[in-house]
Amino acid sequence: MTLLDEQRAVVAARTGIQLQITRVAVRSAAKDRGLSIDPSVFCTDGADIVSDPEIDIVVELIGGIEPARSLLRAAIAAGKPVVTGNKELLANHGAELFGEADDVGVDLLFEAAVAGAIPLMRPLRESLIAEPVQRIMGIVNGTTNYILTQMAERGASYAEALSEAQSLGYAERDPTADVEGFDAGAKAAIIATVAFGEVVVAGDVYHEGISRITAHDIETARRLGYAVKAVAVAESVGDPPEVAVRVHPAMVPMHHPLAGVRDSFNAVFIQGDAVGELMFYGRGAGGRPTAGAVLGDLVDAAVNLASGGPGRIGRLGRARIRSIDELRSEYYLGVEVADRPGVLASVAAVFGSHGVSIRSMEQHGLGEDARLVFITHECRERDLQATRRDLRGLDEVHEIGNVIRVIGDENPQQ
Amino acid sequence: MTLLDEQRAVVAARTGIQLQITRVAVRSAAKDRGLSIDPSVFCTDGADIVSDPEIDIVVELIGGIEPARSLLRAAIAAGKPVVTGNKELLANHGAELFGEADDVGVDLLFEAAVAGAIPLMRPLRESLIAEPVQRIMGIVNGTTNYILTQMAERGASYAEALSEAQSLGYAERDPTADVEGFDAGAKAAIIATVAFGEVVVAGDVYHEGISRITAHDIETARRLGYAVKAVAVAESVGDPPEVAVRVHPAMVPMHHPLAGVRDSFNAVFIQGDAVGELMFYGRGAGGRPTAGAVLGDLVDAAVNLASGGPGRIGRLGRARIRSIDELRSEYYLGVEVADRPGVLASVAAVFGSHGVSIRSMEQHGLGEDARLVFITHECRERDLQATRRDLRGLDEVHEIGNVIRVIGDENPQQ
Repeated sequence: MTLLDEQRAVVAARTGIQLQITRVAVRSAAKDRGLSIDPSVFCTDGADIVSDPEIDIVVELIGGIEPARSLLRAAIAAGKPVVTGNKELLANHGAELFGEADDVGVDLLFEAAVAGAIPLMRPLRESLIAEPVQRIMGIVNGTTNYILTQMAERGASYAEALSEAQSLGYAERDPTADVEGFDAGAKAAIIATVAFGEVVVAGDVYHEGISRITAHDIETARRLGYAVKAVAVAESVGDPPEVAVRVHPAMVPMHHPLAGVRDSFNAVFIQGDAVGELMFYGRGAGGRPTAGAVLGDLVDAAVNLASGGPGRIGRLGRARIRSIDELRSEYYLGVEVADRPGVLASVAAVFGSHGVSIRSMEQHGLGEDARLVFITHECRERDLQATRRDLRGLDEVHEIGNVIRVIGDENPQQ
Repeated sequence: MTLLDEQRAVVAARTGIQLQITRVAVRSAAKDRGLSIDPSVFCTDGADIVSDPEIDIVVELIGGIEPARSLLRAAIAAGKPVVTGNKELLANHGAELFGEADDVGVDLLFEAAVAGAIPLMRPLRESLIAEPVQRIMGIVNGTTNYILTQMAERGASYAEALSEAQSLGYAERDPTADVEGFDAGAKAAIIATVAFGEVVVAGDVYHEGISRITAHDIETARRLGYAVKAVAVAESVGDPPEVAVRVHPAMVPMHHPLAGVRDSFNAVFIQGDAVGELMFYGRGAGGRPTAGAVLGDLVDAAVNLASGGPGRIGRLGRARIRSIDELRSEYYLGVEVADRPGVLASVAAVFGSHGVSIRSMEQHGLGEDARLVFITHECRERDLQATRRDLRGLDEVHEIGNVIRVIGDENPQQ
């Protein structure tokens, strides 16, 4: 039975609306999906759906850019509200679709596109419409959070944890989109667009993956009071405001609510000027959670359609994007060195030459295989990267390890 | 400057609506509030506001039953949407107000009444309208969460932590409403009403406070892998469904997202059949957080008013309430005994006579001041209470300690 069949009576009782599945376009209409849908509703051409005057609302769950983009544009042009879970499409062509939906006056709803089952888009669009959102930090990719959790809690290597995620179906055979941050980057673009009311596209998002993170990084972070998490960050900074959007591994203070988000769960942490800190937590993926998000949007579109009420995204301007070079952050940086007299002085001089101040240093190991672990005070990304580049030039330095940005403690729980 | 003044331009840009404060009824119109509101808008009679044809939307932040109830009824009868943060009124007279708002076809919005700044009511009413919600567990009283956090993290006694909460302004001079669970009970009634679509009133909520919880209870719980939290629980149980609603201290597994909610923060954890586990976290109180919640509702009411779109609560039936006696739970129970041969056998026989099975037992101390700490397997509340009653009759038993319900591990993070 579909979730819609299960919940049709509840929806009707609460809204007075009877939802019916009229047509479903699939690749193979003959395949038995074990659903309670009348087989005669299946067809193979989405164009038949978007042009059908009997159909009031179109749901798109194809994924990818085409044919999803053309079908949604046709549906909107035909005056039909649309519900989609297509993050790639929205992160690349959202402005076009939002604008067209606004012109026609129909809803374009996409709760399932970001953080799966978590009601996030509607609270951002509606509850927080009058909120000056300053920063959003999210764990929006369940695969990488699962991998990092396994590394932290069981001491698994990255390769072991990835392999386990693949065998559980959390990671694809080619895990690039997840582990290199492309999936999270698309979601970050959508979140930033909705939160700040200006278009941010996937290409605006700086991203780094988790594939170079080592068990040693995670263990060192833990000892210093941090969890390593793959985060998506969207901030409004400066005046006139610019939007900074990035996806990368980060050290999150252990008492921060995001640090406790384990396994394949997602969570989105919002800092607003009036509401303070909020966090939304839940399942980022999975069939029924995603179905729940889609059905919520479908009911919303139906209620709005019946009442004549509009959506509320509107025509958006393009955001001014701030470069990652301008980021101000604390940084964790590991440096493999030969432990000889004067090495720390040489290394410290490089930090100093770029104005990067060291908050703490630890040495692990001795002799030719020593490792220095630094945490800096807040500095600019470009200065940190220049430091890293110059450190490579020192004879005593064998290798530069990961740079991990440290999420500050500026909003501890009180 | 009011939050509305700060955000007026943003609201206008995103919705096309200009919000203006026309009148404000206060006890003393002459008092200087340091706000940017034209002094001439202040008046002292709320009746002047609800009857004014120039006023489109009424916001009530008086608190208590009267005159809030009469004013809101008059505003609704006059066709004005209303926004309120009045949990006491909604938990006792919500059905009447929801019904009248539904008859007239105006919004009755109350995001600020429960969990302050956290967008909870709208996601429950809209995003999860088609979701079979099974259980909601919330930390909805910041005062008690602050007290329990101080007891857990600093080893403070209940009296010390309460006194500190009072000096910080988190607790009232008479803390009864918070520490005995009345405040959380009213919020639980509202949450249950919205989540299950049936009226639950404050009087339906079973409640126990935290004032008897000791540092020893918290330390023992911690050693066993639990945090002690004051929770509000609303469940839909049985067939035909009944609603079980209760507020009490509970032992929450350390890895559960609610266990990490510290200090005066609030959080609401939702288990739904389709969406799985969700949690909403944020500030439960405070001037600006509450103002943010009210302003979000105000914009929503204005958008709906402009578009003719309705609210979505409707006329609700009365919920069938399940008694606390029927609760099935694991329980923590401490028993002060004289440590003599045979005492454990006597005590265990009492548990056995009521069919209560013991999952674990620890003895602390020796001789005349020994303490036995039990955790039971899942059993019925009435059997546990009968066990507790009979234990009091044993010669070897000096005193029965707290019964703390244990939140099961049935939904661990995966």
